[in-house]
Amino acid sequence: MKVKVSRKAHFNAAHRLYRPDWEDAKNSAVFGKCNNPNFHGHNYDLVVSVKGEIDKETGFVIDMKVLKDLIKDKIEDALDHKNLNLEVPEFKDLNPTAENIAVVIWNKLRPHIGASNELEVVLYETPRNFVTYTGG
Amino acid sequence: MKVKVSRKAHFNAAHRLYRPDWEDAKNSAVFGKCNNPNFHGHNYDLVVSVKGEIDKETGFVIDMKVLKDLIKDKIEDALDHKNLNLEVPEFKDLNPTAENIAVVIWNKLRPHIGASNELEVVLYETPRNFVTYTGG
Amino acid sequence: MKVKVSRKAHFNAAHRLYRPDWEDAKNSAVFGKCNNPNFHGHNYDLVVSVKGEIDKETGFVIDMKVLKDLIKDKIEDALDHKNLNLEVPEFKDLNPTAENIAVVIWNKLRPHIGASNELEVVLYETPRNFVTYTGG
Amino acid sequence: MKVKVSRKAHFNAAHRLYRPDWEDAKNSAVFGKCNNPNFHGHNYDLVVSVKGEIDKETGFVIDMKVLKDLIKDKIEDALDHKNLNLEVPEFKDLNPTAENIAVVIWNKLRPHIGASNELEVVLYETPRNFVTYTGG
Amino acid sequence: MKVKVSRKAHFNAAHRLYRPDWEDAKNSAVFGKCNNPNFHGHNYDLVVSVKGEIDKETGFVIDMKVLKDLIKDKIEDALDHKNLNLEVPEFKDLNPTAENIAVVIWNKLRPHIGASNELEVVLYETPRNFVTYTGG
Amino acid sequence: MKVKVSRKAHFNAAHRLYRPDWEDAKNSAVFGKCNNPNFHGHNYDLVVSVKGEIDKETGFVIDMKVLKDLIKDKIEDALDHKNLNLEVPEFKDLNPTAENIAVVIWNKLRPHIGASNELEVVLYETPRNFVTYTGG
Repeated sequence: MKVKVSRKAHFNAAHRLYRPDWEDAKNSAVFGKCNNPNFHGHNYDLVVSVKGEIDKETGFVIDMKVLKDLIKDKIEDALDHKNLNLEVPEFKDLNPTAENIAVVIWNKLRPHIGASNELEVVLYETPRNFVTYTGG
Repeated sequence: MKVKVSRKAHFNAAHRLYRPDWEDAKNSAVFGKCNNPNFHGHNYDLVVSVKGEIDKETGFVIDMKVLKDLIKDKIEDALDHKNLNLEVPEFKDLNPTAENIAVVIWNKLRPHIGASNELEVVLYETPRNFVTYTGG
Repeated sequence: MKVKVSRKAHFNAAHRLYRPDWEDAKNSAVFGKCNNPNFHGHNYDLVVSVKGEIDKETGFVIDMKVLKDLIKDKIEDALDHKNLNLEVPEFKDLNPTAENIAVVIWNKLRPHIGASNELEVVLYETPRNFVTYTGG
Repeated sequence: MKVKVSRKAHFNAAHRLYRPDWEDAKNSAVFGKCNNPNFHGHNYDLVVSVKGEIDKETGFVIDMKVLKDLIKDKIEDALDHKNLNLEVPEFKDLNPTAENIAVVIWNKLRPHIGASNELEVVLYETPRNFVTYTGG
Repeated sequence: MKVKVSRKAHFNAAHRLYRPDWEDAKNSAVFGKCNNPNFHGHNYDLVVSVKGEIDKETGFVIDMKVLKDLIKDKIEDALDHKNLNLEVPEFKDLNPTAENIAVVIWNKLRPHIGASNELEVVLYETPRNFVTYTGG
Repeated sequence: MKVKVSRKAHFNAAHRLYRPDWEDAKNSAVFGKCNNPNFHGHNYDLVVSVKGEIDKETGFVIDMKVLKDLIKDKIEDALDHKNLNLEVPEFKDLNPTAENIAVVIWNKLRPHIGASNELEVVLYETPRNFVTYTGG
């Protein structure tokens, strides 16, 4: 009996969308308002899900408290109240679009999730814009 | 690396559930309050998702702005503040249940989404009633 | 010790904004899309609040169950799945704007609330548009 | 054309997490605050989804009213305002974790859903903790 | 310039509504399902608001972090994962209705809020039932 | 009959909390993570309310469309996707706390609201932190 366990978290961060190898005009044409060189920001909401067998002893797939602490240690502490472009190493050469942030979060969590379990990351950039990554 | 990108939109519309080829008694028995001949209405919430490869140049699967404008042009302008039964051609001979509205929306969007991308439509008739269609 | 007790409810209805004594052009200019003669609709959310002294015996200002049933009897049964313009007598000569609907709801509930208690009605026409009426 | 139809419901209940065959110290170490012998409680939100072919006659996969009543009869009446450990037979020897509650709910509903339809249960223990079970 | 600063928090707890000085039949008649002797529970959401002058130095009425920590220390630590009837001294002889819980929370916070500031407590027993207390 | 009409809007922005006339150590001690010199950001939600008499002709206190456009012109266009500290003149010498942002928004809107109407601004910095300003 496989169950998917989901935990919601959040962090606030600043970012801008741009490519340093493009000229300003092209960055502006492609990324619009999101290319503001002075940055803008979001309250990112994050849902991390782990799917696996229910442990017969505990009735847990993964202890929600353990999952909560893992997200706190690996994601919230790394991204909350940060400037993604300037302060988060993964985005040094990677445009911090919602898609890329979701992949970065998935990659940071994957080593800490049991190998037989599946991992899914849903990242809300705003309540109306969100992305889902399952590693494939 | 495939990511699913989702955009939330909404429209308000009137409708009634009924079949013109059924007698009133049968329409009333099957569709209950939703068969009111004077119509009732909903604030429909819509989540449109496109799944595909991240473009390495931009970091986007699809530009959210492009997706937002596509939903505006093809769906919101066609359905918002409309009477679905009387004013939307697709429902001339099709009962506007949540299921059928979702299929209609999917069919209207599909030609405008890249062929290698998957499309999903979630339609909320109320916060407690919603349907999901992925084209299959 | 006065406490305000609030109960959330909802109903779905169709309406149009217009004045029968105005010409079409004026109705259209003033009410825009909301003037569609074929009607459109909303999921109305409603919050009814009663403020008064806590009853020392029960610990209640008003039993939430009683308040819930009162809203059901007087408001939901009268408005749910209805066409406000055609089927609700209060709007026979009254434009069913959010403001007017809130006043009508308040007037329908007021006789059933204890005279020493205050009554407040908040009506959400959409999650982004709402009105508050306290009787004054 | 297969569509997934979803209906949201809720119930309030008390529970504690523990195993009667473990000593207090172990129960406390594994289940933490959730092991409080005097119980604690939740407003559980529940989303039940049925996926199947749209009936060409009605435009429904399943009548939402039928689904709503089924959830009321089989789940809400059995769990609402109950102490899961003491009053719900399924948890006599089963720890009422969110995972196990979701499986119990799925098993209670499955016989009442058409054999060709798929069933999914999402159970929110809190707005931040939720689980999904699809029977596999 | 007075501004009201609000902070949302939550706690999960079990309770039952009853009066020990009433007979079972009367408790059952007045409090219905909420009188279950085995308890039931809720995810309580809490909004605490402090209204006062903006400090010209900091731009704060009250530092949100200070308010968050105050709610944690005085309310969440006292009520979260507790049985209100059995484990919270304030309810030893007081029925834990939403109204009474809000008054208890207000009384616990009031001594820690600056004397020139106003305090408001909104307590959600469920997303549909909530109460507001401002001390008067 | 006075009714309060409310309209929800939103904008995304970057900011930092600090005073240029304070040393780094003091800024850091008072403003904590919010003092990050590289900025962080938020999805700000905004509820603007106008209270006044219902116009007997239209049934409106204020046309929601007019209010929506006013918020768009005066607030969203000025603040959305901006760095509040660097790009919004009102914060050149004013710390962009939620309190101060709410006052700035109120002051920008007040001249455009009828003199006999009351104006209220609620600003959500996050779903858990928000402030209310009514001009007094």
